[in-house]
Amino acid sequence: MAGENVLTPQEQDFPRWYQDVVAKAEMAENGPVRGTMVIRPYGYAIWERMQAAVDARIKATGAKNAYFPLFIPQSYFAREAEHVEGFSPELAVVTHAGGEDLAEPVVVRPTSETVIGEFMAKWIQSYRDLPLLLNQWANVVRWELRPRLFLRSSEFLWQEGHTAHASYEDAAAYALRIHYDVYNDFLEKVLAMPCVLGIKPPSERFAGAINTTTAEAMMIDGKALQMATSHELGQNFARAFDVYFQNEAGQAELCHTTSWGASTRMVGGLIMAHGDDRGLVVPPEAAPIQVVVLQVREDDALDAAARELLGSLEAAGVRSELDRGRGSFGRRVTDWEIKGVPLRVEVGPRDLAEGRATIVRRDSGEKLAVLLTDVARECVAMLDSMQRHLFAAALARREANTHDVSSVDEALEAAQSGFARLAWDLLEGEGENRLKQGAITVRCLQRRDGSIPVSEGEPELVAYVAKSY
Amino acid sequence: MAGENVLTPQEQDFPRWYQDVVAKAEMAENGPVRGTMVIRPYGYAIWERMQAAVDARIKATGAKNAYFPLFIPQSYFAREAEHVEGFSPELAVVTHAGGEDLAEPVVVRPTSETVIGEFMAKWIQSYRDLPLLLNQWANVVRWELRPRLFLRSSEFLWQEGHTAHASYEDAAAYALRIHYDVYNDFLEKVLAMPCVLGIKPPSERFAGAINTTTAEAMMIDGKALQMATSHELGQNFARAFDVYFQNEAGQAELCHTTSWGASTRMVGGLIMAHGDDRGLVVPPEAAPIQVVVLQVREDDALDAAARELLGSLEAAGVRSELDRGRGSFGRRVTDWEIKGVPLRVEVGPRDLAEGRATIVRRDSGEKLAVLLTDVARECVAMLDSMQRHLFAAALARREANTHDVSSVDEALEAAQSGFARLAWDLLEGEGENRLKQGAITVRCLQRRDGSIPVSEGEPELVAYVAKSY
Repeated sequence: MAGENVLTPQEQDFPRWYQDVVAKAEMAENGPVRGTMVIRPYGYAIWERMQAAVDARIKATGAKNAYFPLFIPQSYFAREAEHVEGFSPELAVVTHAGGEDLAEPVVVRPTSETVIGEFMAKWIQSYRDLPLLLNQWANVVRWELRPRLFLRSSEFLWQEGHTAHASYEDAAAYALRIHYDVYNDFLEKVLAMPCVLGIKPPSERFAGAINTTTAEAMMIDGKALQMATSHELGQNFARAFDVYFQNEAGQAELCHTTSWGASTRMVGGLIMAHGDDRGLVVPPEAAPIQVVVLQVREDDALDAAARELLGSLEAAGVRSELDRGRGSFGRRVTDWEIKGVPLRVEVGPRDLAEGRATIVRRDSGEKLAVLLTDVARECVAMLDSMQRHLFAAALARREANTHDVSSVDEALEAAQSGFARLAWDLLEGEGENRLKQGAITVRCLQRRDGSIPVSEGEPELVAYVAKSY
Repeated sequence: MAGENVLTPQEQDFPRWYQDVVAKAEMAENGPVRGTMVIRPYGYAIWERMQAAVDARIKATGAKNAYFPLFIPQSYFAREAEHVEGFSPELAVVTHAGGEDLAEPVVVRPTSETVIGEFMAKWIQSYRDLPLLLNQWANVVRWELRPRLFLRSSEFLWQEGHTAHASYEDAAAYALRIHYDVYNDFLEKVLAMPCVLGIKPPSERFAGAINTTTAEAMMIDGKALQMATSHELGQNFARAFDVYFQNEAGQAELCHTTSWGASTRMVGGLIMAHGDDRGLVVPPEAAPIQVVVLQVREDDALDAAARELLGSLEAAGVRSELDRGRGSFGRRVTDWEIKGVPLRVEVGPRDLAEGRATIVRRDSGEKLAVLLTDVARECVAMLDSMQRHLFAAALARREANTHDVSSVDEALEAAQSGFARLAWDLLEGEGENRLKQGAITVRCLQRRDGSIPVSEGEPELVAYVAKSY
């Protein structure tokens, strides 16, 4: 619009475009300690919208929020062999505190299965205490050698759910419920992101899990991003932390546990799933500002009209903000576009003389001059339509860029520009390793009907393979 | 009611009573690393209520939430001399991360003035960028040698606000606004806690501040608890982190900054301000469960009536829960009393035959048998009345236990059972030290009319002195 090239075009250099958007939309910056991140108010407001939507869905499944300590004794990690092996290279360790060297160093949590396992063992006595359904919102630390804002940071924010159940079936059913009713419902309805749901192959499982379910989204450049995962932990952590319950017959049994998480990484996914060369495109449901009322210039008459519009929008439940018209109009339009605000309502003298304002939709650029009294109603309708359009467009893009192939060689080729889909059987033996040499991984395994399998041993599974973030 | 002594009586041993309540109401437990805390679902639900109420008030002042890193370079602390001196003994230090020793150790934030100062310097160019009003919800770590759950823990949760202004006056006015409109309004209306507002004497100021305003509450045992503080930082941090702005005349000037915080410590204050020998008493506004509908026993007819009541309460906007009557009635009554749920609605066969249920108020024990169709309306009225009563009772208790004295000796005596109030002049020279030897501190300084002074140098100030947590 303004004709300036504020951002690197996506086609030219997608990673650079991403960096530009994160900086220019004032989403986040690098912190002073390597790999850490400062989330600026606009980025944090989007995260708060995500938190509220996910939190409500988590609570609807019956889980309750709690808070466990940041610091975990180093010895806890050693109790589950795969877990310690998986996380050791990424741990940050406090060796000195309160002016003294610590007798036992403490680890800054990378995830909380261990410390929560310890307390589950204290709190669970009998089958009547089950299921125990907990969640926490917290920061975690995993030292990153190649950090990228939101996508891979040494510290990130997330929710981590941890549950204990009386049977394998109950644990598996709950983990699946979280995946469908919390994550997938949120990703589709709020972030407008259609995801491929399936289980991870053994090589990509969470350290200590017996099964990991994932939601994989396709970014605009065709790469995959893992948006959320749910883990069946079997009895691995229950055994390591003595999480027993007395069953109805009075016998002690080990619990079956699950864990599941989604993080600020989703903000990166949102940017790369919907953004364009003019910047971010925030789906209305996720947008802290859904409509900006933009005065063409500073002027009392425009200001009065704009304030009235703002009032009518807020009364209609639309999250709105006023731009009172200081500075260049073109520059301000560019700035609001970079921030991806779904609709702007432009209030200028010519329109106003006719009792109208112009609504401009961020994704399509569609413009509509409507009577001032119709603005709020029209915005509500356009926000709804934009939300549905973004989902449909992302789904169409994913389908156009998902290629059915019938050999590892074809998969290596097809995954250069999207997802490749092939029989999981074809990857047995050396197949998965050959993909990895081409920087391609198995994102997930699905049944032919699109449902989520119970294990990678089921017959006739389909593998989605792709490059990934 | 059940006649059992589940809790140590307050008169017998108040600290032990506190520990008992925290454990038996399932509020929190000690974490495995010294001084850390596990906040259990019921305690966390109260904290979530507090967060929502404080967050809305903070946003109403124009501040925006953001997130700054947990890890801060050690060198940042050295830049403000008083700050490093104040915090050094409490710091936890990460020396090892990602499998290697770090070149520069990093500190786990005890508070974020330093790192936020660094970014304010980047983000502020001109007077048009001011005021810059930021807040974050985060965990912080200050190593505690004598930890107590909620009151003093090595890790705690809080909000910390950080703002930058063009003038001393603007900064001071904003800090005061936070103190009145955010903290005191919240403390009075939600926690039902009347606080003494005033400034700290120089000896008790935040490390690096030029003025600290505090809200001091009286606990049931007569001791003081600091509930929230706001700091004028003058230009100390702006100087240390080069936070300059260009004024309207085009000249570079140093900003004036503030910081202000309130933490999970307030949960401890809530417990000790309203609790009694039967347990916690949660003010209705802060209560995650305002009403428990309690079936006298398991029974289909009772269950149907109880569910209908629950529906009518929820429709009236009352946060309610159903106790379906499994197990001893007396034990369940005791448990709900320990948790301090404001009202219980008892549904038993005799009442039900008359189309009634009995409402019991947690604080006064008042019982009222009302028609089923009137329960929701009556509960709304009783919750409102209980909220006002708790505040009035706490205020009356504080007034009865605040003693006007006219010498240091009298203050030493009077502060054994409440607050002592005396002329600040009387504490000059050795007075404050003599109090300290008796484990008594100056909690705050006030003007004679109860307003908050600008500095400790104002004439005719009154000092509140007390033992404290």
